[in-house]
Amino acid sequence: MSKGVRTRAAILDEALSLMSTDGLSGLTIGLLAERTGLSKSGLFAHFGSKEQLQVAALQEAQASFTAHVIRPVLDLPRGLPRLEAFAEGWWAWNRSPPFPGGCPIQAASLELDDRPGPLRDEIAAAQRRLRAFIQQGAGMAVAAGHFRPDLDCTLFAFQMVGIAFAQTMTCRLLGEPEGLDFVRRAWRAQVTDAQGTHNQTGETSHEH
Amino acid sequence: MSKGVRTRAAILDEALSLMSTDGLSGLTIGLLAERTGLSKSGLFAHFGSKEQLQVAALQEAQASFTAHVIRPVLDLPRGLPRLEAFAEGWWAWNRSPPFPGGCPIQAASLELDDRPGPLRDEIAAAQRRLRAFIQQGAGMAVAAGHFRPDLDCTLFAFQMVGIAFAQTMTCRLLGEPEGLDFVRRAWRAQVTDAQGTHNQTGETSHEH
Repeated sequence: MSKGVRTRAAILDEALSLMSTDGLSGLTIGLLAERTGLSKSGLFAHFGSKEQLQVAALQEAQASFTAHVIRPVLDLPRGLPRLEAFAEGWWAWNRSPPFPGGCPIQAASLELDDRPGPLRDEIAAAQRRLRAFIQQGAGMAVAAGHFRPDLDCTLFAFQMVGIAFAQTMTCRLLGEPEGLDFVRRAWRAQVTDAQGTHNQTGETSHEH
Repeated sequence: MSKGVRTRAAILDEALSLMSTDGLSGLTIGLLAERTGLSKSGLFAHFGSKEQLQVAALQEAQASFTAHVIRPVLDLPRGLPRLEAFAEGWWAWNRSPPFPGGCPIQAASLELDDRPGPLRDEIAAAQRRLRAFIQQGAGMAVAAGHFRPDLDCTLFAFQMVGIAFAQTMTCRLLGEPEGLDFVRRAWRAQVTDAQGTHNQTGETSHEH
C-alpha cells in the first residue's frame, strides 16, 4: 500500500471508532485530527469535506459487515441453513462489532432519519440492500421447500430487522444477559411461522 | 405559572426539538442559547449542567409519551383491546411524535448504549418501564383468556419493541409508504402466535 492509501485507511479506522461510540455527530474533524495526529487541512486533503469523510466511514462499516457477516454464509446451502447462519452472525456482530462501540450503521439509521442529504441516502441504501439480502434468502428458503409457499418475504425481512434492533437495545443498553436468548426465541417463532404448520407427514393447517 | 417555571418549560421545549432532530450530541448549550434567546449562564442557572438539562429533556419526552400514548388507553378493557389501542398509539407516535424529528427516546436508546452515566441510566429505566407496561398488558390478556396461558410475556414485549424499531426505520429512514402496513401485519402475526391456535370451539393445537 502507498503511504496515501495507508493514511486514508488509518483515518477511516479512527473515524469508525469515533462513530461507533459517539455517533455521526460525534465524529468531528477536530477530534479526528487529535486522534490521528494529522492536521485538519491534512484530513481535508484526504476527504475533501466532513460529509465525504462520513460517507466514506459508513461505506467502510458496510464493507466490514459484508466481510464479517455476509461473505462467510454464501458458501452454505441456500435457504434455511444460510439464513440461520446469517442470523447468528448478525447477532454476534450486533453484540460485539469490530469497533469499540455498537454497530455504527444501526445507530446512524435512527440518527439520520430526519436529515436529507448524501449521508442519509448512503445509510438508506445500505438498509435497503440488507433487507433485499434477507428477502432473497427467504425466497430461496421458499424455493427449497423450507418455508411455506405463501410467505411474504418482504415482511419476513422487516421482522428480522426488528429482532436485530430489539437485540441491540436489550444486550447493549439494558445489558441483560438473557438478551441473546430472547433473540433466538423471537427468531424461532418467526421461522416457525414461516415454515407454516407443516407436520412430518407433509400435512398443513391449510388443509384442515 | 411563575416566570421561572415558564422559562424552564420553554427551554425544555427547544431542547426536545433539538434532541429529536439532531440527537443528544446535537443538543449543545450554545445552540440552545441561540434558539431560546437566553445566555449560556442563564441556561446553567436553570439546569446546573448540560447533563442535567439532557436528563430533564429525556424526562419531558417520557412524560409526553405517557400523556399521548399510555394514558389514553388505560380506560379501555384490560387485555387485547388495551394492547391493540396501545400498539396503534405507539406507531402513530413513532410516525409523528409531537417534535419536529423522530422519537428522541428511541434514538437516544441506540446513541447512549456505550456511554455509562446518568443519561444512559435514565433511558435504560425508561425502556424497562415501557417493557414492563407491555409485559403487564400481555399478562392481563392471558388472565382474560385472550392469549394462551403459556405465553412468555417478556418475550412478547421484546418482539413488540422490535416491531416499533423496524417501523421507525421503514417509515422515517426509508420513507416507504407501506411501512405501517408491515407493522400491522407483523403485529398481527405476533398476536396470532400469542393467541395460540385456539379455534372457535375452544380446541387448541396442543390437544391434537
